[in-house]
Order: sequence, then C-alpha cells, then structure tokens
Amino acid sequence: MRKIITVSREFGSGGREFGKRLAEHLGVGYFDGEVVEALARQTSLDKGYLDKVLENGVTHFPASYANSFSRISAASNSAMLIAKQHNVIKEIAKNNDCVIVGRGADSVLDDLKPFKIFVYADMAAKIARCRGRMPEGENPSDKELEKKIKGIDKGRRTTHDLYSSFVWGDKAAYNLCVNTSGLSIESVVPAVAEIISDYFKN
Amino acid sequence: MRKIITVSREFGSGGREFGKRLAEHLGVGYFDGEVVEALARQTSLDKGYLDKVLENGVTHFPASYANSFSRISAASNSAMLIAKQHNVIKEIAKNNDCVIVGRGADSVLDDLKPFKIFVYADMAAKIARCRGRMPEGENPSDKELEKKIKGIDKGRRTTHDLYSSFVWGDKAAYNLCVNTSGLSIESVVPAVAEIISDYFKN
Repeated sequence: MRKIITVSREFGSGGREFGKRLAEHLGVGYFDGEVVEALARQTSLDKGYLDKVLENGVTHFPASYANSFSRISAASNSAMLIAKQHNVIKEIAKNNDCVIVGRGADSVLDDLKPFKIFVYADMAAKIARCRGRMPEGENPSDKELEKKIKGIDKGRRTTHDLYSSFVWGDKAAYNLCVNTSGLSIESVVPAVAEIISDYFKN
Repeated sequence: MRKIITVSREFGSGGREFGKRLAEHLGVGYFDGEVVEALARQTSLDKGYLDKVLENGVTHFPASYANSFSRISAASNSAMLIAKQHNVIKEIAKNNDCVIVGRGADSVLDDLKPFKIFVYADMAAKIARCRGRMPEGENPSDKELEKKIKGIDKGRRTTHDLYSSFVWGDKAAYNLCVNTSGLSIESVVPAVAEIISDYFKN
C-alpha cells in the first residue's frame, strides 16, 4: 500500500512548510508546484499561465472577459486543465510514496486512503506569517491582508468543492487537523510523522 | 503557566480513552467523572442525578414536566448546576496541570490558553466502538446506534454552545483535531503529547 499524505491548508497557515518538512522527515517525495510543472510539460503551456488558471479555478475571470462566450470558453478551458491536473496527481500517487500539497489531491486520491491533513491557523497568526514574507517596500494593513487571505481561501474552497464529495476544511473528511498557531512547525512535524506511521501500520 | 489540556469528543470516538492515556503519559491529573464527584460533594446532591442533569443540559426535560412552570424550574436548576460545575473546573485548573474531558472545559478555561483537542471519528468506527462496549444481551441495529450517537452529540453541542463563544467541534477553536478512525489511540498518544509539549514551550 502506497503511503500517500495530502496536505490541505489555509493560506498563511504554514501548510507548505509543513508538507515540505513532513516529506523530508518521512523520506518521501514532495509535490506542490511540481504538479503544475508536470502539467506544463504535458500541455506545452506556460507554468505561470497554468498557475493562474488553476488557482483561480472556474469561477473568477478577468474583467476583460465581458461577454458570456468568453466566460464559457474560459470556464471550459479551466475545467479541462483541472481534470488534466487530477490525472497528473493520480500518476504521481501511483508511482511514489508522497506528500502532495493542495490541488484537490485530498479528494482526487480519496480511494487510495491517503492520510489527509488540514493545516490552519488563527487569523492573527496568518497575517503575521504573510507579513513576514512580503517583498520589501510592501506594507498592506492587517485589514487588507485579512481580505486577501480570505479571498484566496474562498477560491480554494470553491474550486475544491466543485470536484469533491466533501467540503474543503470540514474536519470530518480529514485524519488530522493541525492549528499551527502557537506551534513550531519544525518541532511538531516528527510527532505528526509518528501518527502517520501508525495509520499506515493499521 | 499551568499545562491544561481539554479534550472534547464525539460520542464513541474514544475521546475518554484518549484523554486518560494522555494524562498518564504526561503525568498530569485526569478529570472527567471527577468533576461531577467534586460537585456532588459541594452540593450534597447525588452523582447519578447530577450526571443526568448535566448531560441532558438545559433543553431536555422528562415528559412528565408537562407544564411550563416545571420546565422553567428545571431549566434554572440545570443552569445553576452547570454554572457550579464551571466553578469546579476553574478550581481544578487553578491547582493542577491536567487533562479535562468534556464538560465545556474547552470554553470555560479558554482564558488560560489550554491546549484544546477535539477527538472525532467516522460513524462506522463510532458504531463499532459502541457495539464493543454494549452490555451482554443488548444488540441494537447500526441505525439505532447511529441515532443514539447523534442524539448524545446534539445534547453536548447544545449545552456547550449555550455557554461558549465558539461552536462545539468547530476546528477553528481547537489546537488539534484527531480523527481516531484507523489509528491506535494507545500508539498515537505519545506523539500528541510531543505536540502539546511544543505548545507549552512557546
């Protein structure tokens, strides 16, 4: 049985760091942007373009897409690329013990009984984390950052739920939900890895 | 700073075993029925009676309480006892590093920054666990057990939420949510204890 761990996460909660450290600790493959890179190779499309389409999902279009034909065409293009991304994810999981971050992997791989983690945090912690990663010179207010964080998570939830039998972030669908506020991700990852080992033993 | 851990749990998920093993592993006090025992001593009321009143909360009354006066009187009695129970919980937390299971401790002690765990499980796992603890001779159907489990959790949620600023089981309010399905509680408790140690270090 493949050891597959999916990490879904709120923006700013440290989910990516969590997933990366977890993969390192477990000695398995780590897949995040790698999924899009594989898709870019397959489709000969630009990775930056794919990132944008896949992140915004099927519900947000540029304001320039004023008429409904443009919108339908964009939606069907986006849906097609998301379906292709799902195939890439299945292929990865077939060939590797791995940690996959985001990209609907929790739902796409559900039949394979992955260990599903949801990483989240209090808003204050997420704002602080985002601020720590801002390019120099940028100094948005807390309110602006909160709006950005909520907007990104709304996009993730919408895209996820369109292709899933469960709701993004609903704890019932996950094996473990970790609130990173007040925790050192580096310190707790080994403990989480032990819980995961127990799951794959049973 | 006191190390206080609250364990809230779905009925049948193994939350009590989880809390007990956690307290043993951490070498701190374990409080569950002990809270009611202390309350029984304080009020000179029977523990069995208190269990019933505190478990059913303020919304369920015996059918015999037909008129509204009986209902109001029962509700105010129940509310008074719940308030007294909260004082017992605060007293325990003042004097002991501890694990407290249920009883609204997650909300009552929130100011003390406890490490708050929510233990849950898939319905099939909860049914199996309940069935394993049935007295000999009892053999309810899965449907009956599911109804019972949902009913008990509804009571817990209702009573909790009346006295809390957050919703029972809403992951945002907890530090860690553990789905025990597919895990051995005994095996994973040491790992959870490590996560808790990190929380109290920071």
